[in-house]
Amino acid sequence: AQQIDLAVVAGDGIGTEVVEQGLLALEAALTGTGRTLRTTDFDLGARRWHATGETLTDDDLAAIRTHDAILLGAIGDPSVPSGVLERGLLLKLRFALDHYVNLRPAKLFPGVSSPLADPGEIDFVVVREGTEGPYVGNGGAIRVGTPHEVANEVSVNTAFGVERVVRDAFARAAARPRQKLTLVHKHNVLVHAGHLWRRTVEAVNAEFPQVTVDYLHVDAATIFLVTDPSRFDVIVTDNLFGDILTDLAGAVVGGIGLAASANINPDRTAPSMFEPVHGSAPDIAGQGKADPTATVLSVALLLDHLGLPDAAAKVEAAVAADVLERSGRVRTTAEVGKDLAARIAG
Amino acid sequence: AQQIDLAVVAGDGIGTEVVEQGLLALEAALTGTGRTLRTTDFDLGARRWHATGETLTDDDLAAIRTHDAILLGAIGDPSVPSGVLERGLLLKLRFALDHYVNLRPAKLFPGVSSPLADPGEIDFVVVREGTEGPYVGNGGAIRVGTPHEVANEVSVNTAFGVERVVRDAFARAAARPRQKLTLVHKHNVLVHAGHLWRRTVEAVNAEFPQVTVDYLHVDAATIFLVTDPSRFDVIVTDNLFGDILTDLAGAVVGGIGLAASANINPDRTAPSMFEPVHGSAPDIAGQGKADPTATVLSVALLLDHLGLPDAAAKVEAAVAADVLERSGRVRTTAEVGKDLAARIAG
Ligand SMILES: CC(C)[C@H](C(=O)O)[C@@H](O)C(=O)O
Ligand SMILES: CC(C)[C@H](C(=O)O)[C@@H](O)C(=O)O
Repeated sequence: AQQIDLAVVAGDGIGTEVVEQGLLALEAALTGTGRTLRTTDFDLGARRWHATGETLTDDDLAAIRTHDAILLGAIGDPSVPSGVLERGLLLKLRFALDHYVNLRPAKLFPGVSSPLADPGEIDFVVVREGTEGPYVGNGGAIRVGTPHEVANEVSVNTAFGVERVVRDAFARAAARPRQKLTLVHKHNVLVHAGHLWRRTVEAVNAEFPQVTVDYLHVDAATIFLVTDPSRFDVIVTDNLFGDILTDLAGAVVGGIGLAASANINPDRTAPSMFEPVHGSAPDIAGQGKADPTATVLSVALLLDHLGLPDAAAKVEAAVAADVLERSGRVRTTAEVGKDLAARIAG
Repeated sequence: AQQIDLAVVAGDGIGTEVVEQGLLALEAALTGTGRTLRTTDFDLGARRWHATGETLTDDDLAAIRTHDAILLGAIGDPSVPSGVLERGLLLKLRFALDHYVNLRPAKLFPGVSSPLADPGEIDFVVVREGTEGPYVGNGGAIRVGTPHEVANEVSVNTAFGVERVVRDAFARAAARPRQKLTLVHKHNVLVHAGHLWRRTVEAVNAEFPQVTVDYLHVDAATIFLVTDPSRFDVIVTDNLFGDILTDLAGAVVGGIGLAASANINPDRTAPSMFEPVHGSAPDIAGQGKADPTATVLSVALLLDHLGLPDAAAKVEAAVAADVLERSGRVRTTAEVGKDLAARIAG
């Protein structure tokens, strides 16, 4: 199709602000590609929940499924009980649409300052599993609110689920110059899940003998992220460890205002979803203070996924050029978006 | 008793090297306190397991129980399958002796260089729950090694277990100048466990109204640990999040060569255990390269626990003075230990 049908879930807080700029960047990047853009807005998030009690209905999901991709801003608001929108909307999308590869690049652009004294060159990607682990919602509690309450959370890991994401991570590692894959888990404590991950990585390595594999416990991985982040090329890890490592990685490469992510369904049985790693940031919402760059970089991942690597490269180059001249300047969300779109348009 | 009965579990790798220096520091610190030291070595770890297949027998445990405290070096060796010694020895000690407060201070000593460009003043403690959460060993797998394998790990959290550690953390926060407590969890995803933690912190706060409470998701906490570590005073968190955060915190305050920990049974129904946060580091074992400072600082925590705060302060002051003059000097494990003991002796 020459037309890209994009589902837009701007969501809550700064979500609407950054998505607006992301769409400008996308329009600019599509110029000359022969592709046109059609967007459909989905009213999902805190407003909708307050108005109707709904998070994501079957109809919403069916409608979203007909699109080529999803651009998501941010979900979550303090007025909604914790977990309602996260589980009922964001994670429901990731699980229902089988986004088993949650891809989160961490790259330190020249000109961007890291909180590390001596960051070195940082350019790695985290392949976070997206449909299993402690995120499955398989928990429960008894005697809630009494001194005898017991609250459990179950991490579910399957050979099917681990193998497919591990294979994806190997393929990504094989396509990169350094061809290195680091498995992060905690197999000395979470022995059942951990050993499944470890055996799977060993087995799939046979299909990618050119890829060098190493292993780090999650605690040790956080140490290396601040003492030697250059050592990482591709990290593969479970849903929860990936959540933690990618926020830390985002901070290390200059802040989550720059951290992009792609929730990918590699089998293309449903649309993939592109979103900044940051949240809805209610404290700065509506003030034009949010940095739309993470969303714009997520648009680059979207373009790549839709088979437009040149357009994706243009977007990334625009960001690289913009951040090089940032230091000391204060711009609004819209100003940053306009500058980025102008650079993309070239 | 004027005599301190100390169980010594030197363990594997650099464990023996650092424990030797820790004991020298302890002897030096006890001079003039009227207390004498009697140590009993327990042959536990990789050697014992290879020789007998045992990790920690009922007899070992019963013998250890009769002591006033335990000094532990490090457990783990690549020749032993992952999980065997961790679960069968280290975690078994923590669980059997009800070490529900895993205390891990993070302090940036003047003169120590942090990987952060602008660390600021860092002085906080992590109160990590030690007997519940994903560490309970409540996991299992079916169809292991087949494409239909399912491996689960259960995080178990009880009102009893959460409340006692939260109360301990509040008491510690109340005794510190800033009186601030940060709960770290992930209650937007792990809703059952997370809400138990959250409700418990709210409830216990009523007993400590002078303590200011805030909350961070674990992913956000890792960001602040590298962008604004000064914001933390006391962190209370579950077993797994505490494991991750304290390795990161150790790195931020200059490396886990300096990170001490105490596995405390506050009810004193069994001996508490003091150990460096680092592991057995087989790559540098036997070479005199290990830094014994983390063990010496763990000895300070031990002295505090045994009601000898002045002796503890002496040990900490010796470390503070030593690290101030470290830069550029290379000393062996024994040299650092000798220098620290000399400073403690005064
Ligand atoms: C909002 C939350 C459910 C989500 C997650 O934990 O995955 C977020 O932290 C992220 O990383 O996208
Ligand atoms: C060795 C391992 C079981 C242990 C843990 O995870 O608690 C270690 O990492 C620690 O932090 O003391």
